Amino acid sequence: MKNPPSLDQLISALKVLPGVGPKSAQRMAFHLLQRDQAGADRLARALDRALANLTHCERCNTFSETPLCNLCAEPARNQHQLCIVEMPADLLMLEQARCYDGLYFVLMGRLSPIDGIGPKDVNLDKLMVRALDGVVEEVIIATNFTAEGEVTAHMIAELLKDRGLAVSRIARGMPVGGELEYVDSGTLAQALYERRQLG
Amino acid sequence: MKNPPSLDQLISALKVLPGVGPKSAQRMAFHLLQRDQAGADRLARALDRALANLTHCERCNTFSETPLCNLCAEPARNQHQLCIVEMPADLLMLEQARCYDGLYFVLMGRLSPIDGIGPKDVNLDKLMVRALDGVVEEVIIATNFTAEGEVTAHMIAELLKDRGLAVSRIARGMPVGGELEYVDSGTLAQALYERRQLG
Ligand SMILES: [Zn+2]
Ligand SMILES: [Zn+2]
Repeated sequence: MKNPPSLDQLISALKVLPGVGPKSAQRMAFHLLQRDQAGADRLARALDRALANLTHCERCNTFSETPLCNLCAEPARNQHQLCIVEMPADLLMLEQARCYDGLYFVLMGRLSPIDGIGPKDVNLDKLMVRALDGVVEEVIIATNFTAEGEVTAHMIAELLKDRGLAVSRIARGMPVGGELEYVDSGTLAQALYERRQLG
Repeated sequence: MKNPPSLDQLISALKVLPGVGPKSAQRMAFHLLQRDQAGADRLARALDRALANLTHCERCNTFSETPLCNLCAEPARNQHQLCIVEMPADLLMLEQARCYDGLYFVLMGRLSPIDGIGPKDVNLDKLMVRALDGVVEEVIIATNFTAEGEVTAHMIAELLKDRGLAVSRIARGMPVGGELEYVDSGTLAQALYERRQLG
């Protein structure tokens, strides 16, 4: 006696989600099939649309439905400043803090040798090309103040040193071990204003 | 500055999953788009297939791809015993314990007035029709020994009393508050053998 194949396949497919093990995959499958079939259908459609439509902005590397994202396409932004963040959510947090009008680069991750996440996985090649385009004058590193975020900041600073750019790190106005996503706008603005020059 | 629409829609759609709030929905969306697009596609396909193929067995109410599930279609099973469980996973656990050769009824839930889950949501009408078909002689209630499972067992016992059926409850050989899914086969077999007559 086993589950029907399409049920087992759904349970198994749900395990691709981070933090979802066999028991919660099973609970999710039963919930969707039993209590929210409309939600299950909406999820399938949203996955299809996201896979079909989303790509990475060719300049800042964030998720975008167009080759150039809205923010990069805005001529009013200061073209000489480039702020480097780990994830799109961090970019949105900085925008909400309304303290910065330059451009961004989104790494889409952080270095974590222990998890096998190396320079290529966080798009350092693409960052180098972007930062060294001759227009950018200042790079502000706004990775998280976690161990991985600090290692990533250090590596980027090393790569950019001696390239004629001002390289700074947002100030540690945030709690040690804190992540940008979870900090209030005021603290974040403070950390950005108090950034210190590196190298 | 906002996320592209198809990204926001995916984050929002992921929140239909039980236990998934805005922050983990966002983490899941980034993970799928950034690190496992193949997994995201597999999940969308599995949702479609499950929604298209799965229905409820007309006899035992468990998930099935056919009108009658494999177990209900097996002539070798004892047609006179009906064991009532909350979820398909509980049925699978009892089958693994290899201590029972009768049939099942799967409620697909448990009574929980506090969550607005009433008799209709746990298919008590369908259960009555099934249990009173004239062939079933004994009903064994194997809902969980949680507060909701006990209330459900009590309600079913009340409904079936005085209908000429032997109604029993699996023995509390399981830890108090325990759920069938998490118990070892030996304990589960013991609980079934030591079931006591109700009413
Ligand atoms: Zn961009
Ligand atoms: Zn069946």
